[in-house]
Amino acid sequence: MSYQSGAVVSEGDLVLLYIDERRTKLFRAIKGKRVSTDKGYIQTDDVIGLPWGSQVTLSTGFKAYLLKPLIHDLVMKSFRRVTQVIYPKDLSLIVFLSGVGPGSKVLESGVGTGFLTATLAHYVGDEGKVYGYEVREEFAKTALRNLHRVGLSGRVRIKVRDVKEGIDEGNLDAAFLDLPDPWSALKVVCGALKSSAPVLIFVPTLNQVIKVTDKVIKDGYPQLKIYEVLLREYQPSPDALRPKNMPSSHTGYVVYFRCLKVKA
Amino acid sequence: MSYQSGAVVSEGDLVLLYIDERRTKLFRAIKGKRVSTDKGYIQTDDVIGLPWGSQVTLSTGFKAYLLKPLIHDLVMKSFRRVTQVIYPKDLSLIVFLSGVGPGSKVLESGVGTGFLTATLAHYVGDEGKVYGYEVREEFAKTALRNLHRVGLSGRVRIKVRDVKEGIDEGNLDAAFLDLPDPWSALKVVCGALKSSAPVLIFVPTLNQVIKVTDKVIKDGYPQLKIYEVLLREYQPSPDALRPKNMPSSHTGYVVYFRCLKVKA
Amino acid sequence: MSYQSGAVVSEGDLVLLYIDERRTKLFRAIKGKRVSTDKGYIQTDDVIGLPWGSQVTLSTGFKAYLLKPLIHDLVMKSFRRVTQVIYPKDLSLIVFLSGVGPGSKVLESGVGTGFLTATLAHYVGDEGKVYGYEVREEFAKTALRNLHRVGLSGRVRIKVRDVKEGIDEGNLDAAFLDLPDPWSALKVVCGALKSSAPVLIFVPTLNQVIKVTDKVIKDGYPQLKIYEVLLREYQPSPDALRPKNMPSSHTGYVVYFRCLKVKA
Amino acid sequence: MSYQSGAVVSEGDLVLLYIDERRTKLFRAIKGKRVSTDKGYIQTDDVIGLPWGSQVTLSTGFKAYLLKPLIHDLVMKSFRRVTQVIYPKDLSLIVFLSGVGPGSKVLESGVGTGFLTATLAHYVGDEGKVYGYEVREEFAKTALRNLHRVGLSGRVRIKVRDVKEGIDEGNLDAAFLDLPDPWSALKVVCGALKSSAPVLIFVPTLNQVIKVTDKVIKDGYPQLKIYEVLLREYQPSPDALRPKNMPSSHTGYVVYFRCLKVKA
Repeated sequence: MSYQSGAVVSEGDLVLLYIDERRTKLFRAIKGKRVSTDKGYIQTDDVIGLPWGSQVTLSTGFKAYLLKPLIHDLVMKSFRRVTQVIYPKDLSLIVFLSGVGPGSKVLESGVGTGFLTATLAHYVGDEGKVYGYEVREEFAKTALRNLHRVGLSGRVRIKVRDVKEGIDEGNLDAAFLDLPDPWSALKVVCGALKSSAPVLIFVPTLNQVIKVTDKVIKDGYPQLKIYEVLLREYQPSPDALRPKNMPSSHTGYVVYFRCLKVKA
Repeated sequence: MSYQSGAVVSEGDLVLLYIDERRTKLFRAIKGKRVSTDKGYIQTDDVIGLPWGSQVTLSTGFKAYLLKPLIHDLVMKSFRRVTQVIYPKDLSLIVFLSGVGPGSKVLESGVGTGFLTATLAHYVGDEGKVYGYEVREEFAKTALRNLHRVGLSGRVRIKVRDVKEGIDEGNLDAAFLDLPDPWSALKVVCGALKSSAPVLIFVPTLNQVIKVTDKVIKDGYPQLKIYEVLLREYQPSPDALRPKNMPSSHTGYVVYFRCLKVKA
Repeated sequence: MSYQSGAVVSEGDLVLLYIDERRTKLFRAIKGKRVSTDKGYIQTDDVIGLPWGSQVTLSTGFKAYLLKPLIHDLVMKSFRRVTQVIYPKDLSLIVFLSGVGPGSKVLESGVGTGFLTATLAHYVGDEGKVYGYEVREEFAKTALRNLHRVGLSGRVRIKVRDVKEGIDEGNLDAAFLDLPDPWSALKVVCGALKSSAPVLIFVPTLNQVIKVTDKVIKDGYPQLKIYEVLLREYQPSPDALRPKNMPSSHTGYVVYFRCLKVKA
Repeated sequence: MSYQSGAVVSEGDLVLLYIDERRTKLFRAIKGKRVSTDKGYIQTDDVIGLPWGSQVTLSTGFKAYLLKPLIHDLVMKSFRRVTQVIYPKDLSLIVFLSGVGPGSKVLESGVGTGFLTATLAHYVGDEGKVYGYEVREEFAKTALRNLHRVGLSGRVRIKVRDVKEGIDEGNLDAAFLDLPDPWSALKVVCGALKSSAPVLIFVPTLNQVIKVTDKVIKDGYPQLKIYEVLLREYQPSPDALRPKNMPSSHTGYVVYFRCLKVKA
């Protein structure tokens, strides 16, 4: 199965069936299946071969669109969640600050549900690689299944191990930590990175921000930054524009700094 | 000049000299030059050949670090600005929602100073391409110079033209609009995209949000979303953690939707 | 019934039974009643005569406190709601900007559930007065019952009338508008105020902000201000401090300006 | 000098000369004075006797309005500042949560510049009283001068003393703490309040929030709440509505809880 896809919906493609803002369904186009929604169903046989973006009619007469899922649709709508995930508002800043791009080789720990893993895999491309360390085997397995489902598992290698016990890889371009005690992992993590490479840390509480900030400053790592992203979504109502009633909940804080040259 | 770089600072590399949080300087490592800061200077000859992440001593005895600039450093610190720019808080969400990645071919209009252009060029890689339309020749020239400076101009093609007058390319993966009247450009832009491809619009005022929302709804484009990113940066003081006194100022709103299959 | 109360819980007092953050119950201390909570009950006879702040034991052994309800407890926990209400985050700014204090005589329209009415009544004291105009009789009745319940109805006069049809009072200190079309009411409202008195408007959508802003500017009223209050509440966890998962939802915008001297 | 004023500008009144949003001047109407602005001057003799809200013409021909200053104008525009102040966004929430109103007798420490002192004095009215404790004599003097200037000093008693060394008053309705170490003062403060009375604390850093939260929980005080107010101000431009470029900076956190019955 390929992460890329053509101009029409082909057998095996993941498809985002979009009815309206609150009703979307991500499904795989496998022949002979029925895709049910609370507004009626469609047959996959009637969808395969249609151009992306086509309007289709559900069994009830409701209209829907066949959208090619993007990376944000894939993680949000097809991943089975086993942990607290990192949401798009934070994923996007974390990735941007890391400088990751095509060909990057990066470290991630822990992997959890795999939202960040998938996002990183998307950006590093076929020439890059994401090395994921995850202590809990069940999380590692779920993450791999999630990644496989969206065609990104080939760019990822997941190990069931505590990152603090040692990292097999070296000379990596960036590291991403979503751990309860990231301050304990900084030394081993920096040892696996190119010197001056960035570390991105995600923590939910301010106590963790304080502890990791303290450690980064004491160890002398430069360009330390602490961010919090507040995302407001607006009701798309041109006659009554206003923020949505339910704002995005608190997620966490993003800490960024640069490793230094490892002293020999 | 290459966008990639090696383990040590080589002649021609862009280097981020990091003294402290408020004092950083981006310079090019050209032999025989002096790099001055308000805390003293260094000679480029003393820097070339050092590993990235090395600590150096300025003429005054002050210490500084040689950091390899990441994409956010490059746009924020090396670009000459001729327009209001799109800042990292918005750049990162815009790029993530677009699904752009290695190999993507995308449309951008207007180009302006080129912050988004450079960011897109970073993510599409050597296999991708950014087609930028910009009506003002001086902006196009500055943007190209900015892109050239950071080694990304090879992935970009800029045309001095109003995107509403027609787009030469077709079958593109995403479009990015930073125009005063984006509602006027939707039809021609969707015509140049693959069907179901996303359009990302950035506008500074709520009146523009209302107008473009109205147009997107009337034209029936699906998955319309309107976002505003509020970024809070914290003082990295473990004993007195608090948001920075100067929060990020208002920038604008991000509107996202999907084009549909072009009817023949 | 008095709005004031003594050092001990007296018959007729409103009492806030506080078990924990999510379990509070506001009740009236009437002899011979049982007050039930999902953690057990108490008898009012066992409460009357106890000092405020006393700890009591519920039938199940759970502990609770007898707190004297403050104005924010009274509106939030004892008012029957028949409309969208104005929440404390907005109430507090609205009241502060209005300059209302002991002895103020103010206009409010519409009254709705009466959150703002009660708050204004609290601040104007026994020497002041709140004149409330409300077009829907059922809202007016509910608001009056709510005000009566908390002992504030003596400071309020509610009329079932559209404020735009005329205001009986004059020379008032401030006006408060929570109407769908506040721009239609500005002239008549300013006519009932002292010259240079402030008008505070609360509207939920940005389209209304645009319309009322346009009207205020065209009519030349000075000191126009537009605010939005975002309130973040934190989990009171000293070991894991973080914002609450559920942030306060969008409520509305506060518009402030000053009326001018009425031309004879 | 009285805090109240009549229908016209009288000798001795404080007047807010409003030219436009960025140009306002608060002055006292004393005969024979010239009031200068960067848009020209007026003579106080030409102002005394005019109705509030009158339009006046400056020496340059510019127009301005004579507005009766409200409590927010008074603190923001007439107070000499000697400390970091508490801004309206926080003042308003603090006051509302405290339940303070006409006749309240309250404790404040430290007094600082006196923004909160003046606001409390405004609300407690002539029947109430604000007891302010301030360790630094120079702050106490400045605060008193500020309060005197706006006619509110009669409602305030300021003592140059550390509140932790003892409080002369008792049976107060609420306490307000703006101290570096509020956790050290809780016991003595609760001893001076009516039982179940609220304490409102303002602190700038999250470390202080953590410490005071820890203390409040350990001491078993109920109804603990932690808030942060983010105020957004919008440009009053009906054709280009958008948040102001400069958002309000970080100020601090508001902590609220209730004292309990003092055990004999």
